[in-house]
Amino acid sequence: MVKIELPVIALNLKTYPQATGEKAVALAKICEKVANEYSVSVIVAPQIADIYRVSQAVEIPVFSQHLDAGDPGRFTGHALGETLVENGAAGTLLNHSENRMQLADIEDSVRKAEKLGLYTIVCTNNPIVSVAAASLNPSAVAVEPPELIGTGISVSQTQPEVITDSVDMIRAVNQDVAILCGAGISTGTDVETAIKLGSQGVLLASAVAKSDKPEEVLRGLVEPISK
Amino acid sequence: MVKIELPVIALNLKTYPQATGEKAVALAKICEKVANEYSVSVIVAPQIADIYRVSQAVEIPVFSQHLDAGDPGRFTGHALGETLVENGAAGTLLNHSENRMQLADIEDSVRKAEKLGLYTIVCTNNPIVSVAAASLNPSAVAVEPPELIGTGISVSQTQPEVITDSVDMIRAVNQDVAILCGAGISTGTDVETAIKLGSQGVLLASAVAKSDKPEEVLRGLVEPISK
Amino acid sequence: MVKIELPVIALNLKTYPQATGEKAVALAKICEKVANEYSVSVIVAPQIADIYRVSQAVEIPVFSQHLDAGDPGRFTGHALGETLVENGAAGTLLNHSENRMQLADIEDSVRKAEKLGLYTIVCTNNPIVSVAAASLNPSAVAVEPPELIGTGISVSQTQPEVITDSVDMIRAVNQDVAILCGAGISTGTDVETAIKLGSQGVLLASAVAKSDKPEEVLRGLVEPISK
Amino acid sequence: MVKIELPVIALNLKTYPQATGEKAVALAKICEKVANEYSVSVIVAPQIADIYRVSQAVEIPVFSQHLDAGDPGRFTGHALGETLVENGAAGTLLNHSENRMQLADIEDSVRKAEKLGLYTIVCTNNPIVSVAAASLNPSAVAVEPPELIGTGISVSQTQPEVITDSVDMIRAVNQDVAILCGAGISTGTDVETAIKLGSQGVLLASAVAKSDKPEEVLRGLVEPISK
Repeated sequence: MVKIELPVIALNLKTYPQATGEKAVALAKICEKVANEYSVSVIVAPQIADIYRVSQAVEIPVFSQHLDAGDPGRFTGHALGETLVENGAAGTLLNHSENRMQLADIEDSVRKAEKLGLYTIVCTNNPIVSVAAASLNPSAVAVEPPELIGTGISVSQTQPEVITDSVDMIRAVNQDVAILCGAGISTGTDVETAIKLGSQGVLLASAVAKSDKPEEVLRGLVEPISK
Repeated sequence: MVKIELPVIALNLKTYPQATGEKAVALAKICEKVANEYSVSVIVAPQIADIYRVSQAVEIPVFSQHLDAGDPGRFTGHALGETLVENGAAGTLLNHSENRMQLADIEDSVRKAEKLGLYTIVCTNNPIVSVAAASLNPSAVAVEPPELIGTGISVSQTQPEVITDSVDMIRAVNQDVAILCGAGISTGTDVETAIKLGSQGVLLASAVAKSDKPEEVLRGLVEPISK
Repeated sequence: MVKIELPVIALNLKTYPQATGEKAVALAKICEKVANEYSVSVIVAPQIADIYRVSQAVEIPVFSQHLDAGDPGRFTGHALGETLVENGAAGTLLNHSENRMQLADIEDSVRKAEKLGLYTIVCTNNPIVSVAAASLNPSAVAVEPPELIGTGISVSQTQPEVITDSVDMIRAVNQDVAILCGAGISTGTDVETAIKLGSQGVLLASAVAKSDKPEEVLRGLVEPISK
Repeated sequence: MVKIELPVIALNLKTYPQATGEKAVALAKICEKVANEYSVSVIVAPQIADIYRVSQAVEIPVFSQHLDAGDPGRFTGHALGETLVENGAAGTLLNHSENRMQLADIEDSVRKAEKLGLYTIVCTNNPIVSVAAASLNPSAVAVEPPELIGTGISVSQTQPEVITDSVDMIRAVNQDVAILCGAGISTGTDVETAIKLGSQGVLLASAVAKSDKPEEVLRGLVEPISK
């Protein structure tokens, strides 16, 4: 299994035009540079079609944005675990609010990823769903109130109880799973607050991927967790 | 819009382990070699994560197996048209029986592909659905009785009326769309019969992708339509 | 096949609390009263759980809001055609913008409905998709620009070309299918304009179902098409 | 919240023609008769369109086969909790293997049902997914290995560890949720074994619903748990 040192900044590039193709590679290189400079774990999750070229270009962990349940064979258009590995993926997001999965498929994908050594971050929408996700034993759970995603209004500032409740409820049943949070994270202060509330990292997208100055924004984000 | 000369052989690599990653590249090179030797159009459709490396390696048209409706922005894990183009795709399959789409999304994807210059092959399951698909004005329609897919029992031999009915019914309303057929196509005779029945090409997968001797099988398939 | 005289007013009760259970029965009785008084066809489409009690209470056609593809047997929670018939349904909406269906499933449901004598109204979002739907030979197509649904801003006033283009394009390939329109229809003027533009009826919901005076609103709607 | 005394036999009528419309009512009456005679809890889950007529005819708990997430309003064709209550439902199955749900929607439906006093049985496919479901705090979890559903080869005889593992793993985190099992249950011995393994009831379908002698089969099933 890929090891990710905590705390971690996970950057979802979504399908932003500023983060597609060669621009995804450029952003990943910025992530790598800042990660090395500050000795902070940074994960980059480009679109599936961009995974190969991004993973060829950087040493930091490159994640898929999704992994479909199922084994190699008769599937058309699906994102199979084996193929992600083949293209350099070190892990995957699962059940993002923009790509919700059936419960049984999340479990199937976590098991498949486990077998392939892929790190899994299961996204959830509230503390109760976070516990359910944690009980599937993924590598990490990332709780994100959907209504804050992409708003720049951060979960750590406006809904701190979502983070603390998730941490309390998950730790009552699972000591091992990493606990991340996301939605609206855009500044170092957001990250710092998230960590203080018990989160072990953040999942974010637009604040960096849509920025005119992604390197500057990223430096601001990692600084509070720099070693 | 990418031009594909007819008749055409479209090879869907699905998620076969024999056709993933470097093996997808190897198969695509075989397709290119045979296509050039016989002066026949051959399309190869690898998994989405493999599109970039395959399109870097060959000159024949590389297709996606799927294209999600929607514009760049807030989507996670989706296959956007712009990203497929960026990675070298020349077209895409849509609505494959293993990845059925909503009617409105097929139309949206065909329009998006059109705008991006991507060739579209909409898969269908019977003559009536083929007419519906044709009325959306994609580049091509590929009719495939789902029960024959992957069986090696070819549509052209066992359900010739599916092909002739599709051709007759589509041509009554649309003169331009290319008409392909698929399901169980595995030999040159299957291809020849399909063409005689009015099809302008075939969509196939396992006969080549799972073969121990893919080049030999492919030669057999293209020979009857060689110029 | 159930015959519906044109022009027709089709009322979708959606899941409005004002149109659930006994209130669905009360609204259906108002529809029946007004339909008889003005000699106008009025269809009422309550929630699936309400179909039986509504169909027991009125003589006007009671429609389902949806019909799942597939035959009786191993399905759980699905709306099978046979069961809708058994509970008094005379027809069904298909592919409503709030319940989009896969292309192959729409065709399968239309064929099943045909076999059972159920009238089918396939909802669509634009003229091209309307032609695709019409080519499946349902009883009717209802074009509704999704962005106007529930707004009270009517398609007939603000996007008349959606209606005229749908009519022109459908009639070029299908003379028989009834052509309806919907989205934002709330007054008799909206209905009148829709009919003048070539529509043979309207599909509406909130204007009646959420009204404090549904009978009054309905009278206003049917008056222009009264015989 | 509706109280269901344990152990319980829950009968899913699926969309079997032998269990539709008036035949659903007849089967429900048999269930009621046997339930009373043996003082055993029997739940009957007819198709959604049949809930009203069945709940009018019997006093035993009538369940829906599904409940869609979401509040009353702009939904077409969905099964809203409020409407199920209005039609006499006392509870609902959720996430049946023939109607799998997204994780976040299962949680949303459980919360909605809770608010409406509806009993919830969340179906799962293995012990780990059962724990995830149990952590959402439904009324009950029913574990059913999908490959055995409808086979007549019972989970209690052939995969006893699925039941014991589910019980052990669920009880480690949740003392309150009822634990049922299903798949292939067809005889009293299957029920007896399931109870001995720690299950508090069974979910079944075809053995009764497709039988020529449903009353006889049902008597055989309830006898071992009769008081």
